[in-house]
Amino acid sequence: MKRFEIVPNFSEGRRQDVIDALCRCYREQPGSLLLDFEYDHDHNRCVLTAVGTRDALIDATIAACRIALREIDLRQHEGGHPRMGALDVLPFLPLEDATMADAIEAAHALGQRLWDELEIPIYYYEEASLGERRLLPEIRKGNFEGLREAVKVDPSRRPDVGGPELHPSFGASVIGARRPLVAFNVYLRSLDIEVAKAIAKAVRESSGGLRNVRAIAIDTTAQGSVQVSMNLVDVDQTPIYRAYEFVVAEAAQHGVSVSHAEVVGLVPLGALLAVAQRSLRLRGFQPEQVLELRLAQQEGEK
Amino acid sequence: MKRFEIVPNFSEGRRQDVIDALCRCYREQPGSLLLDFEYDHDHNRCVLTAVGTRDALIDATIAACRIALREIDLRQHEGGHPRMGALDVLPFLPLEDATMADAIEAAHALGQRLWDELEIPIYYYEEASLGERRLLPEIRKGNFEGLREAVKVDPSRRPDVGGPELHPSFGASVIGARRPLVAFNVYLRSLDIEVAKAIAKAVRESSGGLRNVRAIAIDTTAQGSVQVSMNLVDVDQTPIYRAYEFVVAEAAQHGVSVSHAEVVGLVPLGALLAVAQRSLRLRGFQPEQVLELRLAQQEGEK
Repeated sequence: MKRFEIVPNFSEGRRQDVIDALCRCYREQPGSLLLDFEYDHDHNRCVLTAVGTRDALIDATIAACRIALREIDLRQHEGGHPRMGALDVLPFLPLEDATMADAIEAAHALGQRLWDELEIPIYYYEEASLGERRLLPEIRKGNFEGLREAVKVDPSRRPDVGGPELHPSFGASVIGARRPLVAFNVYLRSLDIEVAKAIAKAVRESSGGLRNVRAIAIDTTAQGSVQVSMNLVDVDQTPIYRAYEFVVAEAAQHGVSVSHAEVVGLVPLGALLAVAQRSLRLRGFQPEQVLELRLAQQEGEK
Repeated sequence: MKRFEIVPNFSEGRRQDVIDALCRCYREQPGSLLLDFEYDHDHNRCVLTAVGTRDALIDATIAACRIALREIDLRQHEGGHPRMGALDVLPFLPLEDATMADAIEAAHALGQRLWDELEIPIYYYEEASLGERRLLPEIRKGNFEGLREAVKVDPSRRPDVGGPELHPSFGASVIGARRPLVAFNVYLRSLDIEVAKAIAKAVRESSGGLRNVRAIAIDTTAQGSVQVSMNLVDVDQTPIYRAYEFVVAEAAQHGVSVSHAEVVGLVPLGALLAVAQRSLRLRGFQPEQVLELRLAQQEGEK
């Protein structure tokens, strides 16, 4: 089956009734499952995770954006998280038999409908990008307030679909396609944030470290440690254990050991099986040997 | 849902049509799934793995034993594997919401029906044992030929249900209940079988090693190594990584390193997630964070 995970980020983290109404769009749409939602008062933002078919997810998102159009006004929105639209950002992640090309197609189809039906200007990012402009922070630079002015004078900041001006209350949305990402944090037995910063710099791709790894240091000294917080953007190519072992080795160079680690949010099963295979040096292992997967497979066939 | 895995071992590994007919009983019974079957000409034995509800698995086994009664005659059976019945041994393993008490009840219900309906004498083993006699090798000592004579003179060797003599052609069956078992082999970078024997002796419970671990040394020098072959009979209490790390440490004492390892057959997902958690030092990890499990769960609820 071709399904996708989407992670719509809406600029509402305070009004429970609005958050409920947004969630309901994904929960009640046939062919769509709401897997998770989180919201934060300070960020004034909610992050939903839904899985479904292309059409179901697009229909659910159109319905949710109708609610956001009515309920969320960026001119009055305040919160600690960068944002430029009522639906701020929404990536499609290919699951099961869906390819990245399918995810890009779905992102473009949703973007076109948001403009055609609701007059929401659209930017495409990551794999769905149409040109040089690929990264979210680059597109969102200046936030709603800054971007609203920038589009008037700078053609390079204008939307990919619709516009050229932002929607007065909704702003604009960034729609994209990317691989599933694993949020993986390693805690160090140290209170020295400089050590965490040095390790984060060493491990992340942008400063010469591991491909597909983004990393920053986070001060968690209140918990008796400092943290190397990573986003692993392609765990097929750069597995979790590679990032973990890199951080362990790098920490040792600073005379520091690893206390523990955590996976935040969802993680694909294959990424964890790869860790087990690595540490047991398993040879010839097939995912079909996992009892629960074999069962699910057989039930699908029967 | 309360389901069980069963692993019926039939004394037929040569006639494809008989093996097919036995498999069909589990494949075509509603509520039962045939997950796997393996057979071996030299052992003259087939090992099926099926999952299903109590009633479905009992009905399928009664049907399979009707075929075995007609097709398999222990008086003419030869093969390298110990055996005492046409259905030689069948354990129930609790899955999902089923408890060990449920598995024991199912084993006893099957045993009673095999005697009542087909006059097959039954021995209970492992958790389903009714008394002191718990282990398969102990019950099966002397094979069909020896046991057939032993029951005539030794009351302690007689069946738990039916008998006291064996069925003339079918023999008798050993039905039981046990936890899912993980077959886990570790290959050493050595051609010295004595090293493998010493490690097997050190790791197995019976000679003072790890609880819930059975181990023997196997000569795999043709593959350029020797093997410590283990059955892990309770991976909740004694995880795979515990056995693996024990063997690695013990091998190091002999100046030998581990080449690789293998899991033979099925393994519960939780046993592999425990390995990943161990080696990444994951804290606060929940199986619900695995995307595929969350999906299956939500689909079940919708």
